[in-house]
Amino acid sequence: MSTSVNLKDRERTAEREGMDRLLSPRSIAMVGASNQAHRIGGLIFANLKRAFEGALYPVNPSDDEVMGIKAYRSVSDLPETVDLAVVAVPGKLVPGVVEEAAAAGIGGVVVVTSGFAEVGGEGAEWQARLTEISRRTGIRLIGPNCIGYMNLHGGVMANFSLDPTAELPRAGGVALVSQSGGFGSYIAMMALKAGLGLGWFVSTGNEADSSVAMVMRHLVDRPEVKVLLGCVETLRHPEIFIETAERALELDKPIVLLKAGRSEEAARAAMSHTGSIAGSAEVLDAVCRQYGVHIVESMQDMLDLGLMFQTGKRTGGRRVAIVTTSGGAGVLLADEAARAGLSVPELPAEEQSRMLAVMPQPFFGSVSNPVDTTAQVTAMPEALGNLLQQLGSSPSVDMIVTVVWEQAAIHIAGIVEMEAETGKPVSVLCTGAAPKVVEAGIPLYLDPGRAVRTLGALARQSLDKPAPCRPEAPDSARVARMRAMLAQCEGRKVLMEHEGKRLFAEYGIPVTREKLVTAPAEATAAVEAIGGLAALKFMSPQLLHKSDAGGIRLGVTASAARAEAEAMLEEVAAKAPGARLSGILVQEMVPARLELTCGIKHDPVFGPMVVLGLGGLMVEIMAEVAMLRPPFGADAARRAIEGLCGGRVVSARRGLEPAELDAAVAIVSGLGRIALELPEIAEIDINPIRIAHGRAVAADALVVLADPSE
Amino acid sequence: MSTSVNLKDRERTAEREGMDRLLSPRSIAMVGASNQAHRIGGLIFANLKRAFEGALYPVNPSDDEVMGIKAYRSVSDLPETVDLAVVAVPGKLVPGVVEEAAAAGIGGVVVVTSGFAEVGGEGAEWQARLTEISRRTGIRLIGPNCIGYMNLHGGVMANFSLDPTAELPRAGGVALVSQSGGFGSYIAMMALKAGLGLGWFVSTGNEADSSVAMVMRHLVDRPEVKVLLGCVETLRHPEIFIETAERALELDKPIVLLKAGRSEEAARAAMSHTGSIAGSAEVLDAVCRQYGVHIVESMQDMLDLGLMFQTGKRTGGRRVAIVTTSGGAGVLLADEAARAGLSVPELPAEEQSRMLAVMPQPFFGSVSNPVDTTAQVTAMPEALGNLLQQLGSSPSVDMIVTVVWEQAAIHIAGIVEMEAETGKPVSVLCTGAAPKVVEAGIPLYLDPGRAVRTLGALARQSLDKPAPCRPEAPDSARVARMRAMLAQCEGRKVLMEHEGKRLFAEYGIPVTREKLVTAPAEATAAVEAIGGLAALKFMSPQLLHKSDAGGIRLGVTASAARAEAEAMLEEVAAKAPGARLSGILVQEMVPARLELTCGIKHDPVFGPMVVLGLGGLMVEIMAEVAMLRPPFGADAARRAIEGLCGGRVVSARRGLEPAELDAAVAIVSGLGRIALELPEIAEIDINPIRIAHGRAVAADALVVLADPSE
Repeated sequence: MSTSVNLKDRERTAEREGMDRLLSPRSIAMVGASNQAHRIGGLIFANLKRAFEGALYPVNPSDDEVMGIKAYRSVSDLPETVDLAVVAVPGKLVPGVVEEAAAAGIGGVVVVTSGFAEVGGEGAEWQARLTEISRRTGIRLIGPNCIGYMNLHGGVMANFSLDPTAELPRAGGVALVSQSGGFGSYIAMMALKAGLGLGWFVSTGNEADSSVAMVMRHLVDRPEVKVLLGCVETLRHPEIFIETAERALELDKPIVLLKAGRSEEAARAAMSHTGSIAGSAEVLDAVCRQYGVHIVESMQDMLDLGLMFQTGKRTGGRRVAIVTTSGGAGVLLADEAARAGLSVPELPAEEQSRMLAVMPQPFFGSVSNPVDTTAQVTAMPEALGNLLQQLGSSPSVDMIVTVVWEQAAIHIAGIVEMEAETGKPVSVLCTGAAPKVVEAGIPLYLDPGRAVRTLGALARQSLDKPAPCRPEAPDSARVARMRAMLAQCEGRKVLMEHEGKRLFAEYGIPVTREKLVTAPAEATAAVEAIGGLAALKFMSPQLLHKSDAGGIRLGVTASAARAEAEAMLEEVAAKAPGARLSGILVQEMVPARLELTCGIKHDPVFGPMVVLGLGGLMVEIMAEVAMLRPPFGADAARRAIEGLCGGRVVSARRGLEPAELDAAVAIVSGLGRIALELPEIAEIDINPIRIAHGRAVAADALVVLADPSE
Repeated sequence: MSTSVNLKDRERTAEREGMDRLLSPRSIAMVGASNQAHRIGGLIFANLKRAFEGALYPVNPSDDEVMGIKAYRSVSDLPETVDLAVVAVPGKLVPGVVEEAAAAGIGGVVVVTSGFAEVGGEGAEWQARLTEISRRTGIRLIGPNCIGYMNLHGGVMANFSLDPTAELPRAGGVALVSQSGGFGSYIAMMALKAGLGLGWFVSTGNEADSSVAMVMRHLVDRPEVKVLLGCVETLRHPEIFIETAERALELDKPIVLLKAGRSEEAARAAMSHTGSIAGSAEVLDAVCRQYGVHIVESMQDMLDLGLMFQTGKRTGGRRVAIVTTSGGAGVLLADEAARAGLSVPELPAEEQSRMLAVMPQPFFGSVSNPVDTTAQVTAMPEALGNLLQQLGSSPSVDMIVTVVWEQAAIHIAGIVEMEAETGKPVSVLCTGAAPKVVEAGIPLYLDPGRAVRTLGALARQSLDKPAPCRPEAPDSARVARMRAMLAQCEGRKVLMEHEGKRLFAEYGIPVTREKLVTAPAEATAAVEAIGGLAALKFMSPQLLHKSDAGGIRLGVTASAARAEAEAMLEEVAAKAPGARLSGILVQEMVPARLELTCGIKHDPVFGPMVVLGLGGLMVEIMAEVAMLRPPFGADAARRAIEGLCGGRVVSARRGLEPAELDAAVAIVSGLGRIALELPEIAEIDINPIRIAHGRAVAADALVVLADPSE
């Protein structure tokens, strides 16, 4: 055991060293460097040349020099073992070049060439060879079919995304990692325009080796990186993604993720251009929520959040002050605040009086919050500055959003001054470009919704960080008991209900009171022992759909139990003659004010997920479920349940009572433990969980075992 | 009757003539015109002067000239009866000026002065006087507390929103009407920047007379207005708003509405700055959906839709072609298309071959749709142009969205050429300003979601227009029967269940089979007649909460009916001695796979609304209901039901079957007729409607009568 851990540790260390050489190289070779400035090999080399301070070697089979630098015939001819080789040669030559690079001890390669898995045929074979070489030799690889990367902090412009004749962007704390090169370039350009300090941009392309998750894992530990933006179609290496998310939480570095390929049609498009299969967007959303990753629905949201997060500010609460010269804009911003889960508290009387004292008289606006200065203040700019200062130091609000006209220089100066002095996050809504605001690093937006939504995201980053959760040590005695039970299944794929209930009970999941009896004669006593009316169920490994064969009797009294049980046995014998009786399950009838459903599903990317939703027909009509990836704590289970249907499963009149919520948490938590301790269980479906009078009880149990051959 | 109609017609005609003179004046006076350019009276007069070609008269008590134009001492001194007077004098003087203007026969006034209802006290009194003068004399009024209006087509710049020294915007087909002056100015500025052809901008302020709805009603009939944008906090004159929406549908002029003051906190803010009470945002949403008005959640959405609608193009279907040079962007756009209810069909093989034929070889992209040309085409711009032309005339797609880099001049030229030739709507996603695209009138966006959402809105405008619905003639015999029944209620506010069911049956609403008997002895025969098990219910005007007093018995057999009924009477006598028996309602027990709830609620703005949602506890957990304003047709009722829970109430496995959907439509339609024919009914609640086996049945009935004093 410890040897394999050490081996894994060694592998991870080697991988990290490889990523370091690949992404922060001290020497670079470029295979396919060209003197033709408009060709890809020329564009990239010109980019490399203008920014890199270390040794740079063009490799070119015919030219003696490339852009004035001595060229080499091949990778083997290089005078030193470089860290990074950028490869821009025709596809069929690429595997050979990478093999040669690995043999020469080069740390990593970036392959920009297209025509690999995304076109299929021999391209797919070439790509498979690249993956094989990387795995065998340990050489790290980005691409193929990518546009390369930009690391401004290390002066590495190994890409053809940026125009080599344009000014180099200023290195900042934001890193962008995108699977798509073209769309990634689009995002990078828009990010720079929006005022994002983009220090890194990596496009991973077909991901023959390095994935978005691997690159982010590398970047999250870089001290200069403060915010990570990711754009994926297929999330490869989910375990590295989760490790990255956990590390980002530790370091308080926000991750913002944009997932493309959510719809069926989009997934088809994704498959056609990268040859990959898109995972389930809903599961990815749930995982992101669980691990504190900000998932966004649009590029604009990603850039908007990046602008807010790069300030480095955090908030101590959710109370927003809104300052406008227009009551109407204040109303709209207050709407957006409510939508973003923020509050706009009325300011205390003494703060209002202090603000009122600096306003023009008679004052036609409001200092209640939203603060509406009206256009009166345009004649008195110092009043606005004074008011902003007061809000900057007010103990009654945590964040400030204000509206400014791009021409209003004095107003802008007041905002910049206040923002520099207060620790509170400030968001500015403007009519257009306001360079002074952007230069001061204050987030500026052109739409009220965007100005406020980002404060909501900042509140989540500051206040809602999920607690880290390590898996509990498995209860080996319990596992042994359960494996013994499963061993008796003798090739069955599905447990009988009473077996499933035994499993549940072992994991603290509340189940119906019930007793398995062997013959009708014992039913009466069993019903009496359970109390009230009972259900009788025919247990048989051969009878999965009991009700079709008359194998269920409901609302049975003790006195009628024996006769009902006998009638049931007769009916099943007639309708399902092959069903061998394992026993008659005598079960309490549980009332329900509300039904939930809960289970374990297997996601192809993230593995077992605990899924929770409304029960019965409602799970289909609602089409909304909560999902958790084990391990998770009881607090996460509670939050997931409380989050269902906008919180109304708990908050609605006649919603879950505290004891019922606790029981539901126990069910969700128990399933999480089962998923970790018993991987031989493929799937569980509890439908319904019946809820009333302070109880939440698993009233049925469908437990499906994994096919051992899988 | 006909006299009052004629009177109403005459009033409406007078009102329209007044609005014409107010908003398209041939002569203007400005009371409070000032020679001080930076004061409001100077700003507005400078604006008026630079654009207006008709007679313009400054009114100033001391100066002989204002900005070189002869001034008059008062409105009474003017040499002619002007159409419009703009008023910018201190609040306390305003009522007198407006009275004088009305006496002089002036058509309308714009009052920009602040300090009226929004500050309360004597300001509120002044505003009440303005309303009174307008009602008494018929003079139309905009404001007070507004920034005036801009009518570029008539050369009327009666506002201080635009800087008189800046260039006049070019008059276009878009009209913006905003209650808020400050926020309206913000929107107007952003609209002009986005490339909207803003021909009109009206701010209505405190709406002492003219409301957003009244101004829109006027504008919708103006031939130069093609698109209406509205921004309201409180929607006044709902009936005029609906008339406007219906007229806009007739003329195929899209209306886009932004409602501020949705949240409680925002509503508080709205009240504080305009002294108005915000209506229910959910009801307004529902009304907009019903009448084909595009309701938006943000300013940006409003401008985005305006850009698309001002092209005047409509679409014949929902099939979108996506053209990108980046597969990743294509995937994201396909996601957005799915989200917007559009499809991205794979193109037919022969079209793909034709496109493939013009692509560079070997081609690494896809012509399937999304069309991913890859960066290969940058070297072959004519290929891209050719491909776009093919899509422009393709019979397989209805709309086109494409991504372009702002520097890509040849690409942009190709798009502009294609867009001019095709009737299909085109949406462009760009990295920044592309003046050639904007000049060509092609909608340009900086985010994939925005580029596609607007095509979704265009599809709704083109394909989902609600059919106009006139109220049916009331069935006077039915009304008479129902009024006779209500007359027997003798001051009761709530009908007994069997009375409610009689009402429902008259209006075609399916109800439980049931029979009212007078004594326990008759119960057995009634249960036998109904068949199966029955419910017994104690009917009494004094017993509204039957179950609390033991007044309900469920699952009663015919043989047990008499004894159960007697026991029920005894229990009620003991627990609710004041309850006088009107009869025992013997009712079938209806099975339910699914429950809905439906009723009539009274909205303070729009009056009676038919409301529909999931039944029982689910209506609270879902917190989602559909609402319809009577009159509406069966098709609208059907769409409302089909729209519940994203369509899944019908589409889910075990969702509504066709016969059940028909029955639900009958219930919704019946309630719509009741709301129109019997205004004395204040509220109805049917909960639950029990649904199973092809039936949807009202199983209960709560009918509340209006207080006659209200």
